[in-house]
Amino acid sequence: MKKLGEIGEDALIERLVALVPTGESAEGPGDDCAVVDEGGEILLLLKTDALVEGVHFLREADPEQVGWKAVARVVSDFAAMGGCPERFLATVALPNSMEIGWIEGFYRGMGKCFEAFGAILAGGETCRVPEGSAAVISIAATGKVKRGNLVTRSGGKAGDELWVTGELGGSLSGKHLTFSPRIEEARWLAEHFKPSAMMDLSDGIARDLPRLGKASGCGYEIDKGSIPISAGCNIDQALGDGEDFELMFAISESVGLLEAWHERFPRLKLTKIGRLKKAGEGMSLAGGWDHFRS
Amino acid sequence: MKKLGEIGEDALIERLVALVPTGESAEGPGDDCAVVDEGGEILLLLKTDALVEGVHFLREADPEQVGWKAVARVVSDFAAMGGCPERFLATVALPNSMEIGWIEGFYRGMGKCFEAFGAILAGGETCRVPEGSAAVISIAATGKVKRGNLVTRSGGKAGDELWVTGELGGSLSGKHLTFSPRIEEARWLAEHFKPSAMMDLSDGIARDLPRLGKASGCGYEIDKGSIPISAGCNIDQALGDGEDFELMFAISESVGLLEAWHERFPRLKLTKIGRLKKAGEGMSLAGGWDHFRS
Repeated sequence: MKKLGEIGEDALIERLVALVPTGESAEGPGDDCAVVDEGGEILLLLKTDALVEGVHFLREADPEQVGWKAVARVVSDFAAMGGCPERFLATVALPNSMEIGWIEGFYRGMGKCFEAFGAILAGGETCRVPEGSAAVISIAATGKVKRGNLVTRSGGKAGDELWVTGELGGSLSGKHLTFSPRIEEARWLAEHFKPSAMMDLSDGIARDLPRLGKASGCGYEIDKGSIPISAGCNIDQALGDGEDFELMFAISESVGLLEAWHERFPRLKLTKIGRLKKAGEGMSLAGGWDHFRS
Repeated sequence: MKKLGEIGEDALIERLVALVPTGESAEGPGDDCAVVDEGGEILLLLKTDALVEGVHFLREADPEQVGWKAVARVVSDFAAMGGCPERFLATVALPNSMEIGWIEGFYRGMGKCFEAFGAILAGGETCRVPEGSAAVISIAATGKVKRGNLVTRSGGKAGDELWVTGELGGSLSGKHLTFSPRIEEARWLAEHFKPSAMMDLSDGIARDLPRLGKASGCGYEIDKGSIPISAGCNIDQALGDGEDFELMFAISESVGLLEAWHERFPRLKLTKIGRLKKAGEGMSLAGGWDHFRS
């Protein structure tokens, strides 16, 4: 029988989601967050995300930084919808040999990120994994977004410009543990230059742009020469390393965007990298981070 | 430095929760669910729970039953607050060697439990654990409860009677994979004989009753001869095995309770097992399931 290692992450999720009731929510499994619309002006956002020892962090890593990262990854997903985080649940599955000081440092790091973004810990669970097993930390959270500010992955149209914030690549050298989610930037975009589609770059443009294109029913084309590359990196790293946690968005009308952006966020790059195309047109990208293949 | 194995689960959680902002919610970390009160008639409930391979299930177990259990445990926590489940997020952290058929069976089992209790899957994540590591499945969910039906662990008063549903002990022989959460029973209790405090028995009376007593600021006394014991089990198993997922509740006035219960739920036992006492009075219990000590 087929093993997980023989199938990609996206294909696996599609097969699994088909096996359970998912309700009528338009944005459910597949977007950065699930969106709960109960008719009011404020929509509820739901998100879960996991960190695995040996995959997303090493036990030698600073536990406060790992705690920050665990929360910041989820905050970044709320940002990608134009929203903000509210309440977190933390599940930590740990071997008995784990030092208490490590997990305390991890909680302190989570706490710093909660404070930085106005969120709280609402609950959680601790449990044991067998000795020799990797620690697994799973974070679930609620957030909110004003109805008018909601941006999904699926609203892009052929012809929309593609933009990214910041610089890409080389995250493993440290930024993946210390990055600052683009909450303010995303809210500002949603309010002033409403993107047609947006996501955060967690697995790299090479993997994430095809996802945005597929969700929007579009092809895409990027100018590789325009990609903002982190110092010391090459284009393949910029496209494929992942964990940049910058914003990538599509926008139909960008007149005045760059000027207004630089006035509001003078220290953060904003770069046009390409366009959405009609389905079946444009280029294709390969690479990026796949959880079951890397 | 101290390792996790040297400290109990409850002590660990207390230390960790002190390190992060938890807001002003009265029922946060420590009760069966977190309660979000935004002023309306319906309160939002939040819960997270994990299943670890080799601790909560074996890979040889029927994956559909494991999937049912993963969801049913959380449904049981919503029941314990007088509420019901709504939307689930599933995080599955798996080794590459896991057979796709296993995880598909797991999702089918979750789906059956979603359908049985009117819930849906709203999102989730799949990720990889290093080869040789235990699979970890983390479930997070939202639920709801009418304000007037909310029952916490902390409302018990000295003198309140203690009752349990069903029969206790021996869950590992199979019931822990196939149990039915007491959603209907809990809602009926909340509406007709409002308990002062309630929880589900996940770790055994020996561990869970001290938790309820502590949350309510009470001591407790049980009549061990009254405990409803599963066929083939002894009193120590009934008190200590855990994973019964029956309801335990305190109630100040039980006149008519037993008759009304048997009319509504003729096939499920309901048994008075003792009373809450003033703090410092009563008995003490030892045993039960501790995730970091067993």
